[in-house]
Amino acid sequence: MDFKTDFKPLTTQPQEIEDKSFQIITDELGPHPFTEEQYPVVQRVIHASADFELGRSLVFHPKAIEAGIASIRSGEKIVADVQMVQVGISKDRIRKYGGGVHVYISDPDVVEEAKRLNTTRAIISMRKAAREAEGGIYAIGNAPTALLELIRMVKEGLAKPSLIIGMPVGFVSAAESKDELRRLDVPFITNIGRKGGSTIVVAAVNALSLLADKRN
Amino acid sequence: MDFKTDFKPLTTQPQEIEDKSFQIITDELGPHPFTEEQYPVVQRVIHASADFELGRSLVFHPKAIEAGIASIRSGEKIVADVQMVQVGISKDRIRKYGGGVHVYISDPDVVEEAKRLNTTRAIISMRKAAREAEGGIYAIGNAPTALLELIRMVKEGLAKPSLIIGMPVGFVSAAESKDELRRLDVPFITNIGRKGGSTIVVAAVNALSLLADKRN
Repeated sequence: MDFKTDFKPLTTQPQEIEDKSFQIITDELGPHPFTEEQYPVVQRVIHASADFELGRSLVFHPKAIEAGIASIRSGEKIVADVQMVQVGISKDRIRKYGGGVHVYISDPDVVEEAKRLNTTRAIISMRKAAREAEGGIYAIGNAPTALLELIRMVKEGLAKPSLIIGMPVGFVSAAESKDELRRLDVPFITNIGRKGGSTIVVAAVNALSLLADKRN
Repeated sequence: MDFKTDFKPLTTQPQEIEDKSFQIITDELGPHPFTEEQYPVVQRVIHASADFELGRSLVFHPKAIEAGIASIRSGEKIVADVQMVQVGISKDRIRKYGGGVHVYISDPDVVEEAKRLNTTRAIISMRKAAREAEGGIYAIGNAPTALLELIRMVKEGLAKPSLIIGMPVGFVSAAESKDELRRLDVPFITNIGRKGGSTIVVAAVNALSLLADKRN
């Protein structure tokens, strides 16, 4: 293909850009309460949001990092609440261990069932995910209703996730769903407040798969 | 499919959740400098980020909303810098007018050319997009290098977008790329500072297609 190539180069080395960004984040964040293995997750969340307040608001279950690494290295599935989370996750490092990233929210049976029950597709998609397999990482960036449903299923013994990454964004039930998650005795990564979103959850998953890779 | 249905319902009416969210946003935002047609974009950006500071930092070229609506209603293409933006945009309202959402960053020829020139795939993808058609909405949420390249092509007469929605997030060149965009005499929607991202740009595009629909 005949591309125009008569342009002066910008700062265009992807690795260089990322390294420089991470250095700025570390410098500006200063002292923080996170462990050495939690910090890469925080760093990538700040990288994806340019929001230090959001980064500082992250809360980790004590076993979250280990559980996430073990889940990825065992090839367990990752369940995304929405397609934006699904496409954002770096697949190579997941597939290497036999895993994959699944999203059920647009499955015809999920759409149909949500209509029938007059509820959200997000809720029904979590029920389907929990039925399909035990374990796995649930990455929820968009729908508080999905997170609340997952929490309820965990409490009732109907879902057994290895790790819940729950950071839905929003004004109705988002902060409350995360408050609920923090009370759960299941490995979780979440944040305090309304902020979050697909890009934030993607950043956390990608940080975890990089940590999983470093164990080699 | 046999879904578990023995759950108590949550607040699960999607339209009700959205209406309530938008009311909270309007109440908490209070007085603002935006026009009646700019405001739905601001509102959806805040909805997607829970970040009033980000919402307030939006800047609109005077012709941005009209240009965006006209572009959508003419069935012009929307170019996304990354797949997360592509999948996030509501397609039904775009396709209705004959348009579609395109992303070139993973095209084999783009990947190959970026390697050959030792530059970012984002830059090469913008060159390919500009060659494929005039006009269109460029929705850039991730890569400052893509936005800087698009600005350069506009200045050199090599790209003629109908509207640029440029809100890449990041620490290297993101804020600077938006400063450049604000100096361009082409319809744009952008924000001041480092914040932004795929979900933010998606929110802006979806607000525009809703506005386009209201013209019926």
